Amino acid sequence: MNEFELIEAIRARFGERGGRVLIGSGDDGAVTRCEGVTVTSVDGFVEGVHFRLATTSMRDLGHKCLAGACSDIAAMGALPGEAYFVLGLPTHLAAGEVTDFAEGAEALAADLGVAICGGDLSRSHELFVAVTATGHAAGEQELVSRAGARPGDRVGVTGTLGGAAAGLLLLERKLGGLDPEIGETLIARQLRPRPRLEAGRALAQAGVHAMIDVSDGVASDGARVAERSGVRVEIELSRLPVEEGVTAVAAKAGIEPIELAAGGGEDYELLITVAEDLAPEAEAAAEQGGTAVTWIGRVREGAGVRLLAGDGTERSLRGWDHLAPRPVPPAPA
Amino acid sequence: MNEFELIEAIRARFGERGGRVLIGSGDDGAVTRCEGVTVTSVDGFVEGVHFRLATTSMRDLGHKCLAGACSDIAAMGALPGEAYFVLGLPTHLAAGEVTDFAEGAEALAADLGVAICGGDLSRSHELFVAVTATGHAAGEQELVSRAGARPGDRVGVTGTLGGAAAGLLLLERKLGGLDPEIGETLIARQLRPRPRLEAGRALAQAGVHAMIDVSDGVASDGARVAERSGVRVEIELSRLPVEEGVTAVAAKAGIEPIELAAGGGEDYELLITVAEDLAPEAEAAAEQGGTAVTWIGRVREGAGVRLLAGDGTERSLRGWDHLAPRPVPPAPA
Repeated sequence: MNEFELIEAIRARFGERGGRVLIGSGDDGAVTRCEGVTVTSVDGFVEGVHFRLATTSMRDLGHKCLAGACSDIAAMGALPGEAYFVLGLPTHLAAGEVTDFAEGAEALAADLGVAICGGDLSRSHELFVAVTATGHAAGEQELVSRAGARPGDRVGVTGTLGGAAAGLLLLERKLGGLDPEIGETLIARQLRPRPRLEAGRALAQAGVHAMIDVSDGVASDGARVAERSGVRVEIELSRLPVEEGVTAVAAKAGIEPIELAAGGGEDYELLITVAEDLAPEAEAAAEQGGTAVTWIGRVREGAGVRLLAGDGTERSLRGWDHLAPRPVPPAPA
Repeated sequence: MNEFELIEAIRARFGERGGRVLIGSGDDGAVTRCEGVTVTSVDGFVEGVHFRLATTSMRDLGHKCLAGACSDIAAMGALPGEAYFVLGLPTHLAAGEVTDFAEGAEALAADLGVAICGGDLSRSHELFVAVTATGHAAGEQELVSRAGARPGDRVGVTGTLGGAAAGLLLLERKLGGLDPEIGETLIARQLRPRPRLEAGRALAQAGVHAMIDVSDGVASDGARVAERSGVRVEIELSRLPVEEGVTAVAAKAGIEPIELAAGGGEDYELLITVAEDLAPEAEAAAEQGGTAVTWIGRVREGAGVRLLAGDGTERSLRGWDHLAPRPVPPAPA
């Protein structure tokens, strides 16, 4: 299969949907209809940094890269729109593996209502993926940035935390002895996350002040909200909705569960801040979006993120370095 | 300089412009105003495949990657809009080299009226760049795809051809003995191309049937128009507007000039097809866009591209393999 045949094989896997795409893949650029405002987010994924092919199938990789990019669209409260892929392909990959990637991305795209309508392939030495995801809204007032948190706001998070990091530990450390079903669920959170698009839209409509997706952990992502909003974000670690099995995995790995739940990242839940009197509306919106919100802290005047232990003292995390060859903490000595 | 400081240093270099950007870099996604339709194109550039740092400065690389992406916007006839970068950065690059890249991209963006409003940095083993460029138009009818060529159309090309390929040969082969000023001009075509945005818009308004940017050479790009339009594209090689100095470089390299002019690529000129009676309008439009159109062939019924020698016989090119480690033909034995 030569380059052009491969491009055709990939293109054949992408369905049309959404009614916005006037010219899809195959021309100088895609042409899409828009009204109001467009949200655009770009994300890079590099073999050995964000994933390893030893533990991630190409099909799951296609799913995960699209999910990560669409999670940013969810965090603005936008309607999902289009996606575009740039792939750097090492020669050891077979054509069928590249089409597996396309199938994984397309299956999620169909589920989310996203149209994949363009891309570029290149030869490379290491596998990399750059995803561009767009979202739509009638106007800026429908969207929620990271910059609107106000002192007094409640801080909440959707769903559960730590699952993706625990799944990564299971994959990378081959930890055994866990209930197989729970283990599979944790691994699925790592490999096949689902962006909270419905919840993001509902929360935006409910009037939350600030929203961000939890891609690097509530500690890091809370710090981003604090910085952009000019406030301090306080998180009570004992309140975090730790996913089932995370504590068991952490124990096996010799790590505190809170390192996974607050510092692990890749859960792609939504961190929100909302005025006290709108908290019930936010709870209802999360439910409407198929999840639940857990209140984990408060916005204060000041700067930065503060992680509070049960006794009110400040904690710090050892942290996972996302620029390390693999975002897994070293096994304890 | 840590990752966050580097991101801030890059962000500080990007100016605001265009009035479309409501939320720029630093949030979950950029938010941009749109009306009508959006054109989106993505392009990947990989060290050792599309460029070598030994012959390309980081500043020039920033320019070139943005130019390549915006050339696709030009080829649709759209107004330039926004750009987004995903960078994979090997550890050997210094922070100052990454900001050089940003400055090179921003200088061209300012010149073109493009707003760079988002990006993502990752660690990687090899340097790669993925660019997303957008363009805008009031409606699809203002744009020109690759699919509209009709039998009987004239085939034309803006500007001159072969310069970028000749510049690449000068850089890679260290060929000497050429007039230094001409050599510098050819190298600039390779390293700092300028997308034909004004000409693209004017040609679209003049009613051309099909348009594509010459990124892989008129032979390859003509074949793309032929395929998408369901026609045959005939190009008379003797009519190609070969850039000054290309013949001399080709002679020094032991290559036919036509290999550079028809097969070299990266000239980022515009290849158009236009109805016979609108040829004068197309000529005027190109002039309005700061260039000139040269008529190089005809659209016929059939399929594929035909390259015709002066005696009317069909020619083939040896071709440059764009997936080879370096798109330079081997030195003759």
